[in-house]
Amino acid sequence: MIQSVDRAVRVLGVLQAERRLSLSEIAARLGLAPSTVHGIIKTLQAHGLVLQDRDSARYRLGPAVLKLGNVYLDTLELRSRALTWAAELARTTGCAVRTGVLLPGEVMIVHHEPRPDGSRQMPEVGIVIPAHASALGKAMLAWSPGLAPEPLRSMTRDTITDPAELAAHLERVRGEALATEVEEAVIGECCVAAPIFDAGQDIGGAIGVVVPMTDWPAGPAVPGAVREAARAISRELGAPSWPPAG
Amino acid sequence: MIQSVDRAVRVLGVLQAERRLSLSEIAARLGLAPSTVHGIIKTLQAHGLVLQDRDSARYRLGPAVLKLGNVYLDTLELRSRALTWAAELARTTGCAVRTGVLLPGEVMIVHHEPRPDGSRQMPEVGIVIPAHASALGKAMLAWSPGLAPEPLRSMTRDTITDPAELAAHLERVRGEALATEVEEAVIGECCVAAPIFDAGQDIGGAIGVVVPMTDWPAGPAVPGAVREAARAISRELGAPSWPPAG
Repeated sequence: MIQSVDRAVRVLGVLQAERRLSLSEIAARLGLAPSTVHGIIKTLQAHGLVLQDRDSARYRLGPAVLKLGNVYLDTLELRSRALTWAAELARTTGCAVRTGVLLPGEVMIVHHEPRPDGSRQMPEVGIVIPAHASALGKAMLAWSPGLAPEPLRSMTRDTITDPAELAAHLERVRGEALATEVEEAVIGECCVAAPIFDAGQDIGGAIGVVVPMTDWPAGPAVPGAVREAARAISRELGAPSWPPAG
Repeated sequence: MIQSVDRAVRVLGVLQAERRLSLSEIAARLGLAPSTVHGIIKTLQAHGLVLQDRDSARYRLGPAVLKLGNVYLDTLELRSRALTWAAELARTTGCAVRTGVLLPGEVMIVHHEPRPDGSRQMPEVGIVIPAHASALGKAMLAWSPGLAPEPLRSMTRDTITDPAELAAHLERVRGEALATEVEEAVIGECCVAAPIFDAGQDIGGAIGVVVPMTDWPAGPAVPGAVREAARAISRELGAPSWPPAG
C-alpha cells in the first residue's frame, strides 16, 4: 500500500460521498493536514479527476472519472454478454431489466434495459443499490454472504434487517437460484433476479426484471425467463454449470 | 504535484487506453520499474479502482471508477439543467440529442436523449468524440480554440484537418452561435449544435441534435430550436447573455 496513493483514492471517496467539499473539509474528513490534501488535490486536478468550482472554491469530481467509468463498462464481459439477453427479457416481460455486479454491501448496475413501452426512464447505469434489499443483491449474496452490508439498513418496512432472517432467506435463494424483492428497497417496486456465474464458478453478477407493485406477482413465465437468461449468460462466460453443483 | 499520485493516475490512464495490461506492460508504458508499479496497482486494487483478471493475471479498470463517474454526472449542473431541454428537442425534432462538455481535444457526452421512435439505441454517456470533427466540439472550440486536438486527425474524408481552415470555420461558428457537422466524424451522421455558457460566460458545454444523412439538411426549424435550447440552459446556469457579447 502506497500511502499517498491510498490518500488520493480516499480524497476521491469523500468527494464521491459528499459531492462538493472545501479543502479544509476534505482534510477534516480524512484526518490529514490541509497542506497534505492540497498537494493530492492539485495532482488529481491536473488530470481532470477533480474540478474546483469557481464561485465556492469547493472541489468536486471531474470529467476524467466518467471516461474511466465508460471504459470499465466496455471491458466488462458480463455486460457485453448480458446485452442481448436483457433486451430479450425486456421484450418478453414488458419490464425494465437490470444487470449488476456485487461490491461490498451493494450492487452496482452495469446495464439497464428500459421498459419497452417507449416511456422516458432515468438511466440507471452506475447507480448502486443495497445488496440485502434488492433481488439482484440477494441473488449474489446467496453465494457470497460475506459481502452483505453491516448493519442491514432498513429501506422500507419490508427490508430484511435481521442477519439471521437474511441468512435463512439466502438459503432459500440458493436452493432456487432465484431471488425476489417485494418493496424491500423502494416502495412500489418489485424484482425477480437470478445469479450469473463466471468460468471459475464464482458469482459474476445478476440479472433481474423490475416489476411494478401494481403488476405483482409477476406472470408465471417470468421466473423461468429470468433463470434462463442468467443460465445463458453464465454459459457464455464459461461457467461449466448453472447453478454450480454443491 | 505528488509523484506517486501522478503515477497512480497514469496507471489508470494506460488501463483506460489499452484496457487490459500485465504489470510489466504497464511499467514499460510508463517507463517505471515493475516494483514501483506493483505497489501502486495493489493500492488501487484495494479500493476497487483496478481488477486483476484471474486467468491472464492482467489488470483492468474496476467497478469503483464507474461509481465515481456516476457521481460526477449527478453533480454536473449542466446535465441536470439540460435534461428537460434535451427531451423537448428530441420530441420536436424526432432526433437523438447529445449534451457534451469539452476536454482537451475531445468532447465527452454527459447526456444522451435517444431518438423518440422507440428503437433500441446504444447509450452514449461517457463516450468521447473528437472535438474538431463534431458539431458539439466545434460549438465549444469557437470559444475555446486552445482545446482543439493536435494534430487534427482525419475521421472521414470530410473532417477538417487543416488548422487554418478550422480557424476560419470556427470564426463562422462563433458568428452564428451554431455549428454543423456533415459526415465529419461518422459516415451517415450529421449534427447541429449550439454552445452553452455558464455564469462566468465561459463555455459550459454544448447541446446538439443528431440528424441521419438521409434526412439532411435538417428541417428549417432545427437550428432555431437548438439555439433556443442552448440559450435556455445557459440562462438557467446563470449566463447573463447568449451568446456572450464581444
